Amino acid sequence: MTPTHTDKQYESELANLREKLLLMGAKVEGMIVDAMRSLVERDDAVAKMVIERDAEIDRMEVEIDEMALQLLALRQPAASDLRFITNAMKIVTDLERIGDLSTNIAERSVELSKEPQLRPYVELQREAAAVRTMLRDALDAFVSRDAARAEAVRERDREVDILHRQIFQELQGLMKESPANVERGMRLAFISKYLERIADHATNLSEAVVFLVQGRDIRHTPKTPSSTGK
Amino acid sequence: MTPTHTDKQYESELANLREKLLLMGAKVEGMIVDAMRSLVERDDAVAKMVIERDAEIDRMEVEIDEMALQLLALRQPAASDLRFITNAMKIVTDLERIGDLSTNIAERSVELSKEPQLRPYVELQREAAAVRTMLRDALDAFVSRDAARAEAVRERDREVDILHRQIFQELQGLMKESPANVERGMRLAFISKYLERIADHATNLSEAVVFLVQGRDIRHTPKTPSSTGK
Repeated sequence: MTPTHTDKQYESELANLREKLLLMGAKVEGMIVDAMRSLVERDDAVAKMVIERDAEIDRMEVEIDEMALQLLALRQPAASDLRFITNAMKIVTDLERIGDLSTNIAERSVELSKEPQLRPYVELQREAAAVRTMLRDALDAFVSRDAARAEAVRERDREVDILHRQIFQELQGLMKESPANVERGMRLAFISKYLERIADHATNLSEAVVFLVQGRDIRHTPKTPSSTGK
Repeated sequence: MTPTHTDKQYESELANLREKLLLMGAKVEGMIVDAMRSLVERDDAVAKMVIERDAEIDRMEVEIDEMALQLLALRQPAASDLRFITNAMKIVTDLERIGDLSTNIAERSVELSKEPQLRPYVELQREAAAVRTMLRDALDAFVSRDAARAEAVRERDREVDILHRQIFQELQGLMKESPANVERGMRLAFISKYLERIADHATNLSEAVVFLVQGRDIRHTPKTPSSTGK
């Protein structure tokens, strides 16, 4: 409750933190898109660009944590600002992991482009589209402080889980058909798993938005529209 | 710099937070051990106990975050206490994920116990032992505020990566030998991957300890003894 809480410098620091998070979110979203493009178009150059971009995401993580810590140390924010800043430190971990997982997809793409394509990647692209939409909506919910929209993201995590399980089953079938399919099948199974993990991180993000806006911690509560807190 | 910074109530709150984190760390360490025991001894009852314990870990995560947020809101801690508290909020995320991953190991164990054992789990047990030691040492380094010990944990992450890759290759070989090996091979490959991820979380933890003690952020810096900051 010191006077600095309302000054313009402080407000602009909070706005900076927020913008940096959103920029990082947009960047990792781009990494998902390009990692999948490198897979589908069998384009190693695109894959390598994704892998190189990960270093920037790592830097942003460190910077955002520093900004947040500075704000906590020098501004001693109260209530909702405090929630925003500590949330930023959680969100940044999820975004950084999404960057890592996109990089992993790109790495598998490079390996896969060396061999004939096992089969069309229709379902994987569906999974990726669903995951990307979850991330986009979670970031939009963060911008607009829209808890309902954030909770809707969370509900969609189950869809991705189901898609992942289908893909997994189909790949297992192909791997049983021929030993020649085993390595490619494993790589594709891992790509599906990476996407499923990105959806989990988008879910974390949406849970953070609900906490930010409403102060309700909905982590580890059932993901049904009728869910009633923890 | 308010007078409350030195009062006994505050000190005991910090001590509580620290103890709760350590308790959570000990519990997830126990989950790794029991998850591997359920695999090796093919004991579904042990696996189910691991899976049930995950709910307690989830509760602890929420409680620790609440404690940390309360401390930040009411005590406005400065410098090293601030670092400790924000660190606690990062560490708790890693511990919670270790709980999840141990649960995943237990789930795969239950599936695997329904079929004949594909082969002895010698290498997986070696990987699990290495991972568990990393976690134990990271927690010990946290207790004793020993940055050198924490950095040593981080160096061992590479050993686990190498072990994981070996296991992965061997399983791929078995899966190519016979379609009957595919499902079990996949399950075991995922267990190895879960362990490798637990090692990553132990690494995060050790990096958090270095930051806590020395204020140096060594995330995303090379893992060599001669590494020089970022």
